[in-house]
Amino acid sequence: MMQMQRQIGLLPLQYTDHKLLLVDQRKLPQILSYFDATSFEDVCFAIKDMVVRGAPSIGVTAAFGLALEAQRQAREAASPEDFIARVSAAGAVLNATRPTAVNLRWGVERVMAVLLGSIKKSLQSHCGAGSAPATAAALALEDAAKILEEHIESNRAIGDFGSKLLPDQCQVITHCNAGSLATCGWGTALGVIRSAHFAGKNISVFVDETRPRNQGANLTMWELTEDKIPATLVCDNMSGHIMLTKKIDGIIVGADRIALNGDTANKIGTYNLAVLARYHKVPFYVAAPISTFDAAIDDGSMIPIEERSSEEITSFMGRPNTVAGARAYNPAFDVTPAELISAIITERGVLTAPYRENIRRVLADNFVFSE
Amino acid sequence: MMQMQRQIGLLPLQYTDHKLLLVDQRKLPQILSYFDATSFEDVCFAIKDMVVRGAPSIGVTAAFGLALEAQRQAREAASPEDFIARVSAAGAVLNATRPTAVNLRWGVERVMAVLLGSIKKSLQSHCGAGSAPATAAALALEDAAKILEEHIESNRAIGDFGSKLLPDQCQVITHCNAGSLATCGWGTALGVIRSAHFAGKNISVFVDETRPRNQGANLTMWELTEDKIPATLVCDNMSGHIMLTKKIDGIIVGADRIALNGDTANKIGTYNLAVLARYHKVPFYVAAPISTFDAAIDDGSMIPIEERSSEEITSFMGRPNTVAGARAYNPAFDVTPAELISAIITERGVLTAPYRENIRRVLADNFVFSE
Repeated sequence: MMQMQRQIGLLPLQYTDHKLLLVDQRKLPQILSYFDATSFEDVCFAIKDMVVRGAPSIGVTAAFGLALEAQRQAREAASPEDFIARVSAAGAVLNATRPTAVNLRWGVERVMAVLLGSIKKSLQSHCGAGSAPATAAALALEDAAKILEEHIESNRAIGDFGSKLLPDQCQVITHCNAGSLATCGWGTALGVIRSAHFAGKNISVFVDETRPRNQGANLTMWELTEDKIPATLVCDNMSGHIMLTKKIDGIIVGADRIALNGDTANKIGTYNLAVLARYHKVPFYVAAPISTFDAAIDDGSMIPIEERSSEEITSFMGRPNTVAGARAYNPAFDVTPAELISAIITERGVLTAPYRENIRRVLADNFVFSE
Repeated sequence: MMQMQRQIGLLPLQYTDHKLLLVDQRKLPQILSYFDATSFEDVCFAIKDMVVRGAPSIGVTAAFGLALEAQRQAREAASPEDFIARVSAAGAVLNATRPTAVNLRWGVERVMAVLLGSIKKSLQSHCGAGSAPATAAALALEDAAKILEEHIESNRAIGDFGSKLLPDQCQVITHCNAGSLATCGWGTALGVIRSAHFAGKNISVFVDETRPRNQGANLTMWELTEDKIPATLVCDNMSGHIMLTKKIDGIIVGADRIALNGDTANKIGTYNLAVLARYHKVPFYVAAPISTFDAAIDDGSMIPIEERSSEEITSFMGRPNTVAGARAYNPAFDVTPAELISAIITERGVLTAPYRENIRRVLADNFVFSE
């Protein structure tokens, strides 16, 4: 089991004994501790306060959160209809915790579909309305566990597809954290880097600090150091200088939501990197599971951008980082237009332009892009 | 006098009573305190440890530092020749404190020329070798004070020339601190912003935090808040998102050294902004006094880039900002190629391409670009 953990990195969550144990990502790398989410409310807090973050991990957490709530409502609801109404309302609350990552909604919708399907089947089979919610809640929990397993598998596939894009000797830049903690598995952007490293490629990584929450400095540096992959921390404003003065073979980032035309929302600063990559003719890769595509959104202009508290910028570890009363603007994400993206690496293969056509194909069940 | 101070901003230094009082810029905006430099060694420490920073302010500080040393050597040197040898050696030590800003060397060379001229004149006039060093040292101090006055004047001229480039209603982005603290006066980049504001233009400013030393968050936000100029603090990685989603009328930065072809070294992150400005068709302005041009350097590839301690990135206010033992890369400056610069605003007017020709003209004495 330790071997397995090592191979896929540290999972950001485990469901055990009626509770969800979440690695408290706010405290890494100084302290590796767990946040025990025993209720639906705990899960909502954990997503909102970024105990857990990273679009795929948020999706998996949301699935477990809704399954936890289904357990409670199976005991408390007056009828199957009341059960569905209460769990649906909880799903809406979950969806509102953070607006940008589509995986959150994806996880909620998938578990909700399992619940609805199960209730409908129970009622049709006349097995008795009384046990229908309990049966549905059990299936919801099974599905959340299955979602986690699928993420572990899809991360590995993303890593293997992406690794082939990199030369045997390479230097890359990554932004924020799209590793085990963010994605429940091998990682997406970091999965590509890990696969390259463990395939014997000589890869080294410049890690953007990723202001204002420093996920690169705190989480990506920690994951790469644990895996002994050569990593150098840099400030976000150094990327152009690095692309100009060193040989950079690629930029690799994750994604929070991808529109049907390929426009990609990801951590603030991703768009700067994409423009700089284009100027320096460096390939710019997005690595993300299929669940990151939003079939309801035609282009990036429709992706809502979360604006977080200005305090994340005006203070640092509780100490002031500017003048008292300073105004700050803190968009948490930006949108990179598809035309700046060299390829989108998914568990079903590597997508390139024309994105609209290829995203439609990859979203069709079982379609896999061959190499 | 208070009125005057307000009008030109807080000067980063004052020479009084045989010592140089430096605003301790490491402690702003939390504490406004002074660092007393009573010796040449104190001045070297203050430049190296960034008690004083900003290319023009470093140049003025170096001039006073060398004049201070001349006072000491006028008492200690055995002869005029020994005096010159000792002060020259001190000049070399000063030049080595920080490598990128050319104003440092400019200040040293200018005071050195005054010393040499005075000694030569004294010896030729047979006034007695004994008093020659004391006379020279007094002139050096007068010249340092004159350099400070000239900076105050040239800052004002830069502000007035630059202000005319901005529309009456405008939003700009600035990086690092090119204000009163950095330039001994009204400011260069901030001088342009101040002139626009006090000319009645409705200007608001996005201020880059400027990692890793946060001069934007700490110094520029402080100066703009003092002058009640609307300012919003942002992280360095947000500039592309801001240029894409808001109307930005210009990027305005200072400079640490400008080569004869117009390539400009400035605080790390300036180059990112320049590339992003070009992509978004936003004008990119450099504001700097003539003393920032380096007539000995043909293009930017010859400008030495200071690499500072990795601890500036791996820790923040003494607390760890990443995993223990993390490697970090900390170039303090980058070079923006001339072709990305819309104009260079100097006290002798606004230079545009062809830069090689126009820089040659502006370096010729008394040449002023008309509007």
